[in-house]
Amino acid sequence: MISSKPASHPSRRRYGSSPQRRPAPLNRPPGMPLASAPALASSPGVYTKKLKVAVLGGLEEVGRNCTLIEYGEDIILIDLGLQFPEEDMPGIDYIIPNMNYLKGKEKRIRGIIITHGHYDHIGGIPHLVPNLGYPPIYALPITNAIIKKRQDDFTDVNQFRIHNVKIDDHLRLGAFDIEFFHVNHNIPDSMAVVINTPEGTVVHTGDWKFDYQPVGEPPADLQRIAKIGDRGVLALMSDSTNAMMPGHQTSESEIGVNLEDLITKAKGRIIIGAFSSLLSRIKQLIEISEKLGKVVALGGYSMKSNVEIAKELGYMKFNSKILIDMRQIDKYPMNKVVVICTGAQGEKNATLMRIATGEHREIKLVPGDTVVFSSSVIPGNERTVQRLKDTLFRKGAEVIHHEMMDVHAGGHAKADDVKLMLSLLKPRYFVPQHGNHFMLRLNGKIAAAMGMPKENIFIADNGQVMEFSKGTGVLTTTKLPSDYVFVDGLGVSDETNVVLRDRQALAEDGMVVIIATVDTKTGLLIQNPDIISRGFVYLKEHKELIEDLRHRVKKLVVDSDPKSWADTNYIRNKIRDYVGQFLFTKTEKRPMILPVVIEV
Amino acid sequence: MISSKPASHPSRRRYGSSPQRRPAPLNRPPGMPLASAPALASSPGVYTKKLKVAVLGGLEEVGRNCTLIEYGEDIILIDLGLQFPEEDMPGIDYIIPNMNYLKGKEKRIRGIIITHGHYDHIGGIPHLVPNLGYPPIYALPITNAIIKKRQDDFTDVNQFRIHNVKIDDHLRLGAFDIEFFHVNHNIPDSMAVVINTPEGTVVHTGDWKFDYQPVGEPPADLQRIAKIGDRGVLALMSDSTNAMMPGHQTSESEIGVNLEDLITKAKGRIIIGAFSSLLSRIKQLIEISEKLGKVVALGGYSMKSNVEIAKELGYMKFNSKILIDMRQIDKYPMNKVVVICTGAQGEKNATLMRIATGEHREIKLVPGDTVVFSSSVIPGNERTVQRLKDTLFRKGAEVIHHEMMDVHAGGHAKADDVKLMLSLLKPRYFVPQHGNHFMLRLNGKIAAAMGMPKENIFIADNGQVMEFSKGTGVLTTTKLPSDYVFVDGLGVSDETNVVLRDRQALAEDGMVVIIATVDTKTGLLIQNPDIISRGFVYLKEHKELIEDLRHRVKKLVVDSDPKSWADTNYIRNKIRDYVGQFLFTKTEKRPMILPVVIEV
Repeated sequence: MISSKPASHPSRRRYGSSPQRRPAPLNRPPGMPLASAPALASSPGVYTKKLKVAVLGGLEEVGRNCTLIEYGEDIILIDLGLQFPEEDMPGIDYIIPNMNYLKGKEKRIRGIIITHGHYDHIGGIPHLVPNLGYPPIYALPITNAIIKKRQDDFTDVNQFRIHNVKIDDHLRLGAFDIEFFHVNHNIPDSMAVVINTPEGTVVHTGDWKFDYQPVGEPPADLQRIAKIGDRGVLALMSDSTNAMMPGHQTSESEIGVNLEDLITKAKGRIIIGAFSSLLSRIKQLIEISEKLGKVVALGGYSMKSNVEIAKELGYMKFNSKILIDMRQIDKYPMNKVVVICTGAQGEKNATLMRIATGEHREIKLVPGDTVVFSSSVIPGNERTVQRLKDTLFRKGAEVIHHEMMDVHAGGHAKADDVKLMLSLLKPRYFVPQHGNHFMLRLNGKIAAAMGMPKENIFIADNGQVMEFSKGTGVLTTTKLPSDYVFVDGLGVSDETNVVLRDRQALAEDGMVVIIATVDTKTGLLIQNPDIISRGFVYLKEHKELIEDLRHRVKKLVVDSDPKSWADTNYIRNKIRDYVGQFLFTKTEKRPMILPVVIEV
Repeated sequence: MISSKPASHPSRRRYGSSPQRRPAPLNRPPGMPLASAPALASSPGVYTKKLKVAVLGGLEEVGRNCTLIEYGEDIILIDLGLQFPEEDMPGIDYIIPNMNYLKGKEKRIRGIIITHGHYDHIGGIPHLVPNLGYPPIYALPITNAIIKKRQDDFTDVNQFRIHNVKIDDHLRLGAFDIEFFHVNHNIPDSMAVVINTPEGTVVHTGDWKFDYQPVGEPPADLQRIAKIGDRGVLALMSDSTNAMMPGHQTSESEIGVNLEDLITKAKGRIIIGAFSSLLSRIKQLIEISEKLGKVVALGGYSMKSNVEIAKELGYMKFNSKILIDMRQIDKYPMNKVVVICTGAQGEKNATLMRIATGEHREIKLVPGDTVVFSSSVIPGNERTVQRLKDTLFRKGAEVIHHEMMDVHAGGHAKADDVKLMLSLLKPRYFVPQHGNHFMLRLNGKIAAAMGMPKENIFIADNGQVMEFSKGTGVLTTTKLPSDYVFVDGLGVSDETNVVLRDRQALAEDGMVVIIATVDTKTGLLIQNPDIISRGFVYLKEHKELIEDLRHRVKKLVVDSDPKSWADTNYIRNKIRDYVGQFLFTKTEKRPMILPVVIEV
């Protein structure tokens, strides 16, 4: 544990030499953060360097979180997540942070710290760490266990250097002296990272909420947070996901009451859809089921492996006998069965979807079954979830979702939680992170409302560099590369945008291929042009249109000066322009036109 | 006005002759609905016919509402709406109800009654009415004015027979004696339809809520509704959109307080995004602005024309001088300007989107501008609206949305509203409509909780026929055609599904065209196969893959028995299978493979 120092530490005076430049802190002058970080002695020349902070992913989206912190020769990363693709990115599996800035700097990466085991914080690891030269990874045990489980899919498992930390560890990574503190979220072993640097202390919250009655873990360590605030915090980088919502986030144990009530009263089976990563929820559900003398079947690979991890590491404690194999489910009376499964977002191949569509081998829905959506709906998934509910109701199930009853507690700080964190840490600068731009803005407004000067609130973009020196921070206009990097069946690429644009165009109005076969000697058409179209119009209803088009292309080619055939590009463009214009006039559609000239 | 009769009318006994079959009503025996409908005399043989009710659109979605009511030779339709396409329907403008059942029955359509002027109730009119032989359309004045305005885009305006009704009119359409009653929604002239038939009275609510303090119109006519209930109602068909939400729907005037506060305090311009069809909201906004001495600029064609209609018909009353042209906007001090515009759902070309992207000619956002989203987010639009908010914040605007403040009141009945309607009308049967299947179920649960027997609650699918005879209703298994009918640039078609499937496939993994040119005489390849791909892989990164593919196709063709060329289908399939398999092995993608064999 770090030693605490009185708030009036004299070395604080080293901050803000010019009174004009010195920004007004929240309520009291900021502390000198380094004074109490015993491992770090600042050398006289240290201020020629600057502390550089850039968020490579997570400032313009919820997902693909990654923060870079650099001082002199030393670089650390916090989190390495993935993001799920938008609707207009068909065929993409996910998006990961852009590591181009680190090309050639691999040896300077002292470590990667992972705040917790959710995919938007760990999902980039298998794809990116190999290219970074396998720097060491530091996280709490459950986080690491989930990371390792995921690595099983990859061949280079042994090259990863994954280290468990303890919540009160000090970690020395180059110029950085690193500590942690416990926060609540909806997965255990969630932590915030305290990075003591020669320029001051940066606190990175990870994903967090304050839960005074959490499940299976202590509440966030307010005393510890207060002490860190007391030592002085240069900058707080904090979760913005739910900051636009007033009040405090719901406690995990509050919804436990509702869930217990539902499971107690169920006359048939209870099937609960949740993220496999909501380990606090799953723990509660299993424990409630055990208490009520029911058995639990888990659905979904990640659900099973996460529960296994949590049990192995002692986070979940239950009699293993209550966990039954899905194939045994019919051996128990309906009202003794609880199913916990993936798919509450309507994910295509997840268990709940397969149960709904009747494709699940072991569970066929019957009237009397109750399906509970114990999750919020991720923006963009609303229609899919609505359709899933329709299907479940059609199969005779009762459906309970969060609009009807509190069956889900969010994992992210709401406005009052943010206020408490700011009050405890009293940072000089506030950097909202983890959210769309508008979420960052609304999070920033909270600090402004509490009196933080606007110029100390950095609403940055992905890659935008923040520099801190002598107690003063600047949000620079320098941007590190942060373009999307896509992962699909082919691997990792940042050039997929071209392909995506084509897919979007094809999706919109389809395409038409025109093949003209001409005799090179004479420049004459050898046969009628071939026309192939897909996704454009229903051909059976538009035979005339296609015949008309064929006729016109023929005429276009026949009428062309045979000499122009020397330049196939010219004639191809001519066909493309002509056909595009013709089809638009006839159909108001703009299919992709692909003219092919075959010369024989 | 219809005359009211005492509840104990003796002819009620004609209902439910067998006590076993007679379903238990809500609280008291149902009345004989026709007794008080003076224009209808039931002939002795009337019960050989049955009353047939089918909802052609609006039971599996929110949108494309249309209800068919048939008795003997007589058919009426209620509403003829459109639905906006789902994400997986690229290139589709909208979806309209399927009229196939009415083919050959056009002369039996006695009329189309439109409950209110929203697109999900009127949008199908220009596309479908011509094919139905232009049956007469009946609606209240504002509804008709909006219908006519929309017809301006079509050439056959003069053939439409559009008739204004008054709220207390009786309308005789064949076997049906039709009345109306006023309900609240968020557009004026919203009405419910009371269809007195030889088999009893069916009440169709349209879209509704109870608003005790509505804006610019009276509250729903509770006395009238109670009287209709008193006469006896066979079946109530009612709006399910918000029935899953507890409590009463917010009053339009309640949010007026917040909006007035926002407009009063604004130091810069206020830009309010709303649906142009939310006429109650727009009326309030204009009147508040006038009261505060501000001017109003309207953005969006439909916004302007709807306000024009509402003013012409006396629904909106304001000094015309306060409406200014968007081009004049810079002549007024910023804090005197209110802009009301379309685009709060993030619609591509709507005013708010163009303002956000900087493409709007007259309004360039400046810090100090406040943008208010005075609308809910339609499921499916969440991500688009999030991105729109990001853009607005980036341009320096303040953004107010419904998560932060009550700036929108829904137009649909919540659970307690539904309970009141059921209590006033006391129907024997309840038919939830206007919503996804799960919404219908949850609406149905309300009636069940109030004591209606489950067998009297009809959760139907689109097209599913309900039959009523001698006071007893049956939800039959007969289904009228209800497949999607698509409208796009080409017009109306119900065969677009094929094209859509292709578009979806193209969007997912793109396509590869393989062109093999062979000599018909020898069966030999004349040149290397041409390969064109779009939306599949980034070609520059995968040159080798394409070369490999070209080589393999060449070998495949060369190795084939030249005789097999006689059957081009055979060789095309061979290429398709081979290439598909090869590319999947290499890329885990399944692009659409289009083999072309050119024989010369």
